Amino acid sequence: MTEHHSDDCLFCKIIAGDIPSIKLYEDDRTYVFMDIMPQTRGHHLIIPKYHAQDFFDLPIDWANACLATAQKMAIAAKAGLESDGVRIMQLNGAAAGQTVFHYHVHVMPVMKGESMALHARDMEKPDVLQPIADKIIAAL
Amino acid sequence: MTEHHSDDCLFCKIIAGDIPSIKLYEDDRTYVFMDIMPQTRGHHLIIPKYHAQDFFDLPIDWANACLATAQKMAIAAKAGLESDGVRIMQLNGAAAGQTVFHYHVHVMPVMKGESMALHARDMEKPDVLQPIADKIIAAL
Repeated sequence: MTEHHSDDCLFCKIIAGDIPSIKLYEDDRTYVFMDIMPQTRGHHLIIPKYHAQDFFDLPIDWANACLATAQKMAIAAKAGLESDGVRIMQLNGAAAGQTVFHYHVHVMPVMKGESMALHARDMEKPDVLQPIADKIIAAL
Repeated sequence: MTEHHSDDCLFCKIIAGDIPSIKLYEDDRTYVFMDIMPQTRGHHLIIPKYHAQDFFDLPIDWANACLATAQKMAIAAKAGLESDGVRIMQLNGAAAGQTVFHYHVHVMPVMKGESMALHARDMEKPDVLQPIADKIIAAL
Protein backbone atom coordinates (compact mmCIF):
# COMPACT_ATOMS: atom_id res chain seq x y z
CA MET A 1 0.00 0.00 0.00
CA THR A 2 1.21 3.46 -0.92
CA GLU A 3 1.70 5.98 1.88
CA HIS A 4 -0.90 8.70 1.50
CA HIS A 5 -2.65 6.29 -0.86
CA SER A 6 -5.25 7.90 -3.09
CA ASP A 7 -8.15 5.66 -4.13
CA ASP A 8 -8.67 7.28 -7.49
CA CYS A 9 -4.99 7.55 -8.48
CA LEU A 10 -3.88 5.53 -11.50
CA PHE A 11 -0.31 5.20 -10.19
CA CYS A 12 -1.40 4.15 -6.68
CA LYS A 13 -3.42 1.39 -8.39
CA ILE A 14 -0.38 0.32 -10.43
CA ILE A 15 1.73 0.10 -7.26
CA ALA A 16 -1.02 -1.94 -5.58
CA GLY A 17 -1.17 -4.26 -8.60
CA ASP A 18 -4.80 -3.39 -9.28
CA ILE A 19 -3.83 -2.13 -12.74
CA PRO A 20 -1.21 -4.07 -14.70
CA SER A 21 2.12 -2.55 -15.68
CA ILE A 22 5.38 -3.73 -17.23
CA LYS A 23 7.53 -3.54 -14.11
CA LEU A 24 11.27 -2.88 -14.34
CA TYR A 25 12.20 -2.50 -10.70
CA GLU A 26 10.75 -2.08 -7.23
CA ASP A 27 12.12 -1.38 -3.77
CA ASP A 28 10.70 -0.24 -0.43
CA ARG A 29 10.09 3.31 -1.58
CA THR A 30 9.92 3.29 -5.38
CA TYR A 31 8.27 1.45 -8.28
CA VAL A 32 9.45 1.57 -11.91
CA PHE A 33 7.48 0.62 -15.01
CA MET A 34 7.38 1.18 -18.76
CA ASP A 35 5.52 4.23 -20.05
CA ILE A 36 2.79 2.87 -22.32
CA MET A 37 2.93 6.04 -24.43
CA PRO A 38 6.70 6.14 -24.89
CA GLN A 39 8.42 9.22 -26.27
CA THR A 40 11.62 7.24 -26.84
CA ARG A 41 12.48 3.53 -26.93
CA GLY A 42 12.81 2.39 -23.32
CA HIS A 43 10.93 5.36 -21.82
CA HIS A 44 9.94 4.45 -18.25
CA LEU A 45 8.61 6.08 -15.10
CA ILE A 46 9.79 6.11 -11.50
CA ILE A 47 7.13 6.72 -8.88
CA PRO A 48 7.34 6.97 -5.10
CA LYS A 49 5.19 4.70 -2.93
CA TYR A 50 3.80 7.85 -1.41
CA HIS A 51 0.94 9.69 -3.00
CA ALA A 52 1.89 13.31 -3.62
CA GLN A 53 0.55 15.25 -6.54
CA ASP A 54 3.84 16.80 -7.58
CA PHE A 55 7.31 17.98 -6.55
CA PHE A 56 5.83 20.84 -4.53
CA ASP A 57 4.08 18.38 -2.23
CA LEU A 58 6.56 15.50 -2.08
CA PRO A 59 8.73 15.21 1.07
CA ILE A 60 12.36 15.52 -0.01
CA ASP A 61 13.36 12.08 1.32
CA TRP A 62 10.86 10.50 -1.06
CA ALA A 63 12.19 12.63 -3.93
CA ASN A 64 15.72 11.47 -3.03
CA ALA A 65 14.57 7.85 -3.11
CA CYS A 66 13.23 8.41 -6.63
CA LEU A 67 16.48 10.07 -7.66
CA ALA A 68 18.60 7.16 -6.44
CA THR A 69 16.36 4.78 -8.38
CA ALA A 70 16.54 7.09 -11.41
CA GLN A 71 20.35 6.90 -11.36
CA LYS A 72 20.27 3.11 -11.14
CA MET A 73 17.72 2.94 -13.98
CA ALA A 74 19.51 5.48 -16.21
CA ILE A 75 22.74 3.48 -15.99
CA ALA A 76 20.93 0.21 -16.72
CA ALA A 77 18.87 1.66 -19.57
CA LYS A 78 21.94 3.20 -21.24
CA ALA A 79 23.82 -0.10 -20.98
CA GLY A 80 20.94 -2.42 -21.78
CA LEU A 81 19.65 -0.46 -24.77
CA GLU A 82 23.06 0.87 -25.84
CA SER A 83 21.58 4.35 -25.87
CA ASP A 84 23.68 7.45 -26.55
CA GLY A 85 22.15 9.51 -23.79
CA VAL A 86 19.38 9.69 -21.21
CA ARG A 87 16.92 12.49 -20.67
CA ILE A 88 15.33 12.85 -17.22
CA MET A 89 12.17 14.90 -16.94
CA GLN A 90 9.73 15.63 -14.16
CA LEU A 91 6.61 17.69 -14.88
CA ASN A 92 4.57 19.63 -12.34
CA GLY A 93 1.14 20.96 -13.23
CA ALA A 94 -1.03 20.46 -16.29
CA ALA A 95 0.55 23.56 -17.84
CA ALA A 96 3.94 21.79 -17.71
CA GLY A 97 2.52 18.68 -19.37
CA GLN A 98 1.72 16.60 -16.28
CA THR A 99 -1.16 14.22 -17.00
CA VAL A 100 -1.18 11.89 -13.98
CA PHE A 101 -1.20 13.70 -10.67
CA HIS A 102 1.09 11.44 -8.70
CA TYR A 103 4.73 12.64 -8.75
CA HIS A 104 6.75 10.76 -11.34
CA VAL A 105 10.14 10.95 -12.98
CA HIS A 106 10.47 10.19 -16.69
CA VAL A 107 13.64 8.35 -17.73
CA MET A 108 14.07 8.48 -21.51
CA PRO A 109 16.96 6.70 -23.17
CA VAL A 110 17.85 8.64 -26.33
CA MET A 111 19.59 7.50 -29.49
CA LYS A 112 21.67 9.89 -31.56
CA GLY A 113 19.45 11.78 -34.01
CA GLU A 114 16.24 10.63 -32.33
CA SER A 115 13.41 13.14 -32.26
CA MET A 116 12.76 14.83 -28.94
CA ALA A 117 8.99 15.30 -28.95
CA LEU A 118 7.73 16.23 -25.50
CA HIS A 119 4.46 14.37 -25.68
CA ALA A 120 3.68 10.91 -26.92
CA ARG A 121 0.28 10.45 -28.44
CA ASP A 122 0.14 6.76 -29.26
CA MET A 123 -0.28 3.79 -26.97
CA GLU A 124 2.35 1.11 -27.51
CA LYS A 125 1.52 -2.61 -27.34
CA PRO A 126 2.79 -4.64 -24.36
CA ASP A 127 4.42 -7.19 -26.67
CA VAL A 128 6.52 -4.39 -28.15
CA LEU A 129 7.42 -2.95 -24.73
CA GLN A 130 8.22 -6.20 -22.92
CA PRO A 131 11.38 -7.13 -24.90
CA ILE A 132 12.71 -3.59 -24.38
CA ALA A 133 11.93 -3.86 -20.67
CA ASP A 134 13.75 -7.20 -20.55
CA LYS A 135 16.94 -5.59 -21.88
CA ILE A 136 16.85 -2.89 -19.21
CA ILE A 137 16.11 -5.43 -16.45
CA ALA A 138 19.02 -7.61 -17.64
CA ALA A 139 21.37 -4.62 -17.21
CA LEU A 140 20.24 -3.76 -13.67
CA MET B 1 36.46 26.16 -5.73
CA THR B 2 34.45 23.31 -7.17
CA GLU B 3 35.29 19.79 -6.04
CA HIS B 4 36.77 17.92 -8.98
CA HIS B 5 37.18 21.34 -10.59
CA SER B 6 37.72 21.25 -14.34
CA ASP B 7 39.79 24.12 -15.76
CA ASP B 8 38.02 24.22 -19.09
CA CYS B 9 34.47 23.87 -17.76
CA LEU B 10 32.13 26.82 -18.33
CA PHE B 11 30.07 26.02 -15.22
CA CYS B 12 33.12 25.58 -12.97
CA LYS B 13 34.16 29.07 -14.13
CA ILE B 14 30.71 30.45 -13.32
CA ILE B 15 30.88 28.96 -9.80
CA ALA B 16 34.35 30.47 -9.35
CA GLY B 17 33.06 33.87 -10.52
CA ASP B 18 35.46 33.93 -13.47
CA ILE B 19 32.51 34.17 -15.84
CA PRO B 20 29.55 36.35 -14.84
CA SER B 21 26.09 34.94 -14.25
CA ILE B 22 22.75 36.15 -12.94
CA LYS B 23 22.79 34.31 -9.61
CA LEU B 24 19.57 33.28 -7.91
CA TYR B 25 20.87 31.23 -5.01
CA GLU B 26 23.97 29.57 -3.62
CA ASP B 27 24.76 27.25 -0.75
CA ASP B 28 27.65 24.98 0.25
CA ARG B 29 26.96 22.42 -2.44
CA THR B 30 24.91 24.11 -5.16
CA TYR B 31 24.82 27.24 -7.33
CA VAL B 32 21.77 28.55 -9.21
CA PHE B 33 21.70 31.03 -12.08
CA MET B 34 19.53 32.17 -14.97
CA ASP B 35 19.83 30.28 -18.25
CA ILE B 36 20.91 32.87 -20.81
CA MET B 37 19.11 30.97 -23.55
CA PRO B 38 15.81 30.50 -21.75
CA GLN B 39 13.17 28.13 -23.04
CA THR B 40 10.58 29.64 -20.73
CA ARG B 41 10.37 32.85 -18.68
CA GLY B 42 12.37 32.27 -15.52
CA HIS B 43 14.30 29.24 -16.84
CA HIS B 44 17.28 28.66 -14.55
CA LEU B 45 19.93 26.04 -13.85
CA ILE B 46 21.05 24.28 -10.69
CA ILE B 47 24.63 23.00 -10.68
CA PRO B 48 26.60 21.10 -8.05
CA LYS B 49 29.92 22.50 -6.81
CA TYR B 50 31.44 19.25 -7.92
CA HIS B 51 32.54 18.74 -11.48
CA ALA B 52 30.90 15.63 -12.92
CA GLN B 53 30.00 15.38 -16.56
CA ASP B 54 26.52 13.96 -16.05
CA PHE B 55 24.16 11.96 -13.85
CA PHE B 56 26.09 8.75 -14.54
CA ASP B 57 29.20 10.21 -12.89
CA LEU B 58 27.70 12.33 -10.11
CA PRO B 59 27.81 10.90 -6.56
CA ILE B 60 24.24 10.55 -5.33
CA ASP B 61 24.71 12.89 -2.34
CA TRP B 62 25.58 15.71 -4.75
CA ALA B 63 22.55 14.85 -6.88
CA ASN B 64 20.41 14.96 -3.73
CA ALA B 65 21.82 18.39 -2.87
CA CYS B 66 20.78 19.62 -6.33
CA LEU B 67 17.32 18.10 -5.88
CA ALA B 68 16.76 19.85 -2.54
CA THR B 69 17.79 23.13 -4.16
CA ALA B 70 15.55 22.38 -7.16
CA GLN B 71 12.55 21.95 -4.85
CA LYS B 72 13.29 25.24 -3.11
CA MET B 73 13.74 27.00 -6.46
CA ALA B 74 10.64 25.44 -8.07
CA ILE B 75 8.47 26.62 -5.18
CA ALA B 76 9.98 30.13 -5.32
CA ALA B 77 9.76 30.39 -9.11
CA LYS B 78 6.12 29.29 -9.14
CA ALA B 79 5.24 31.81 -6.45
CA GLY B 80 7.44 34.66 -7.67
CA LEU B 81 6.45 34.43 -11.32
CA GLU B 82 2.90 33.19 -10.67
CA SER B 83 3.55 30.34 -13.07
CA ASP B 84 1.02 27.56 -13.66
CA GLY B 85 3.54 24.75 -13.53
CA VAL B 86 7.22 23.88 -13.43
CA ARG B 87 9.10 21.53 -15.68
CA ILE B 88 12.31 19.94 -14.36
CA MET B 89 14.71 18.48 -16.88
CA GLN B 90 18.17 16.98 -16.69
CA LEU B 91 19.95 15.93 -19.88
CA ASN B 92 22.76 13.40 -20.15
CA GLY B 93 24.80 13.11 -23.33
CA ALA B 94 24.86 15.20 -26.49
CA ALA B 95 22.23 12.87 -27.98
CA ALA B 96 19.86 13.89 -25.17
CA GLY B 97 20.50 17.59 -25.79
CA GLN B 98 23.24 18.21 -23.21
CA THR B 99 25.49 21.07 -24.34
CA VAL B 100 27.58 21.85 -21.24
CA PHE B 101 29.23 18.80 -19.74
CA HIS B 102 28.87 19.63 -16.08
CA TYR B 103 25.76 18.03 -14.53
CA HIS B 104 22.90 20.53 -14.36
CA VAL B 105 19.21 20.56 -13.61
CA HIS B 106 16.91 22.80 -15.65
CA VAL B 107 14.04 24.41 -13.75
CA MET B 108 11.50 25.88 -16.17
CA PRO B 109 8.48 27.75 -14.87
CA VAL B 110 5.65 27.26 -17.39
CA MET B 111 2.61 29.38 -18.07
CA LYS B 112 -0.62 27.84 -19.34
CA GLY B 113 -0.54 27.54 -23.13
CA GLU B 114 3.18 28.34 -23.32
CA SER B 115 5.12 26.50 -25.99
CA MET B 116 7.32 23.65 -24.79
CA ALA B 117 10.27 23.80 -27.19
CA LEU B 118 13.14 21.66 -25.93
CA HIS B 119 15.93 23.89 -27.14
CA ALA B 120 16.33 27.61 -26.95
CA ARG B 121 18.25 29.18 -29.78
CA ASP B 122 18.43 32.83 -28.81
CA MET B 123 20.55 34.51 -26.21
CA GLU B 124 18.53 36.76 -23.89
CA LYS B 125 19.83 40.13 -22.64
CA PRO B 126 20.84 40.43 -18.96
CA ASP B 127 18.59 43.46 -18.52
CA VAL B 128 15.64 41.30 -19.55
CA LEU B 129 16.66 38.41 -17.29
CA GLN B 130 17.56 40.40 -14.16
CA PRO B 131 14.00 41.62 -13.30
CA ILE B 132 12.73 38.06 -13.71
CA ALA B 133 15.53 36.81 -11.47
CA ASP B 134 14.63 39.44 -8.89
CA LYS B 135 11.06 38.11 -8.68
CA ILE B 136 12.29 34.58 -8.05
CA ILE B 137 14.82 35.75 -5.47
CA ALA B 138 12.14 37.75 -3.66
CA ALA B 139 10.06 34.59 -3.31
CA LEU B 140 12.89 32.47 -1.88
